[in-house]
Amino acid sequence: MPTDSVHTVKSYEQELDRMRAMMARMGGIVESQVAQAVAAVTEHDEEAAQAAPAQDPQVDLLERDVEALAIRLLALRSPMAGDLREIVAALKITGDLERIGDYAASIARRSQRFDLVDRQISLSGLRSMGRLVQENLRRVIDAVTQQDADRATEVWQADREVDEYYTAMFRELVTYMMEDPRNISPCTHLLFIAKNFERIGDHTTNIAERVYYAVTGDNLPAVRPRGGLSTGDDAVAR
Amino acid sequence: MPTDSVHTVKSYEQELDRMRAMMARMGGIVESQVAQAVAAVTEHDEEAAQAAPAQDPQVDLLERDVEALAIRLLALRSPMAGDLREIVAALKITGDLERIGDYAASIARRSQRFDLVDRQISLSGLRSMGRLVQENLRRVIDAVTQQDADRATEVWQADREVDEYYTAMFRELVTYMMEDPRNISPCTHLLFIAKNFERIGDHTTNIAERVYYAVTGDNLPAVRPRGGLSTGDDAVAR
Repeated sequence: MPTDSVHTVKSYEQELDRMRAMMARMGGIVESQVAQAVAAVTEHDEEAAQAAPAQDPQVDLLERDVEALAIRLLALRSPMAGDLREIVAALKITGDLERIGDYAASIARRSQRFDLVDRQISLSGLRSMGRLVQENLRRVIDAVTQQDADRATEVWQADREVDEYYTAMFRELVTYMMEDPRNISPCTHLLFIAKNFERIGDHTTNIAERVYYAVTGDNLPAVRPRGGLSTGDDAVAR
Repeated sequence: MPTDSVHTVKSYEQELDRMRAMMARMGGIVESQVAQAVAAVTEHDEEAAQAAPAQDPQVDLLERDVEALAIRLLALRSPMAGDLREIVAALKITGDLERIGDYAASIARRSQRFDLVDRQISLSGLRSMGRLVQENLRRVIDAVTQQDADRATEVWQADREVDEYYTAMFRELVTYMMEDPRNISPCTHLLFIAKNFERIGDHTTNIAERVYYAVTGDNLPAVRPRGGLSTGDDAVAR
């Protein structure tokens, strides 16, 4: 039945486009989770705090779907060169996106577990850090969907500033804790939130490296420029 | 020249075995990094504290080598079914191993940035947690090299106990900080160390899920049993 086979056997290009669309969708959801995490922490937005973790199952499902499609493409279509690298990169990038979604959900949940009423604790550093992380993620997802190596390189370099924010936050929060024991519990949560934003930045950088390799066939340098080198924290660790 | 081609064209099985050997080697190095991290924190072992980060470049290189070989196998050999799943799993597992190595290096570095002299802070919880994490990692690497789904399932279930340790540690450390402001700085480091061990446990679980899928073609349940549900921390977050 030739009519049937036209409908059921998709072309290789169509399947590759479908994989790209699934990646874009997964990226969009994770991006919204990070935006919700930022709103949950810096604007006490309770709706956002609920929304970020609620999207986790959808992200997990998309990761599995992309993987199943990638395996199908690898097995049945024997892609070569650039396409092969793109499919392999997709397998790795979905892992990073899934982790970013996890961190965002974790931040959102944590935002509901403490309050800063009567505490003289500024969230301005965390707000700037969150926005920067969000912006870098948006740009790297653009780089993924447009297979843009230059944009990937820009994002890769921009993570240095995220590390610097983290180092500053770490010091500021420890100072608050020293000043008043009542700050210890909320600041412990804020420390982990800052750390989670920093980790989101790391995974964003991983994605940038993946895109660069998929597009060019070359690796970015093994050691990336990092900020916060003078910290007592592990901001220097990758 | 047929003699040459015998020497230069490796068989598919040989290449697959080579990939497995590289995974085993990568697993072995990461295992030793985690052992060094545990020794650095709980026994003030300075040599171990230096050794764990020093192994990072080797792990990164092995990740890239496994990936290059996996891509080669996918492109030139068109593996099917179980072999295909194993190669795709290898691509994902190396990412988890690399992350585990990072966390171990981060723990080792951090162990040198504080001291507990004159502080009444017990490390027994952290010691037990570190040993458990180390043991689970050892078992999951066995599961990888032997493609053993049953062992993978056991490790997957054992992570619950790691989460419980983390929750207990979190509470204990916040209590120390409340008791004496001089505990704040070291306990902040210990909090991150406990968190990093917990994250190593998470990645160990990811590897177990990958092995299970590679061997059986089925997924473990999406939601894994977790400990520490009653915590104010994010131990419940994945």
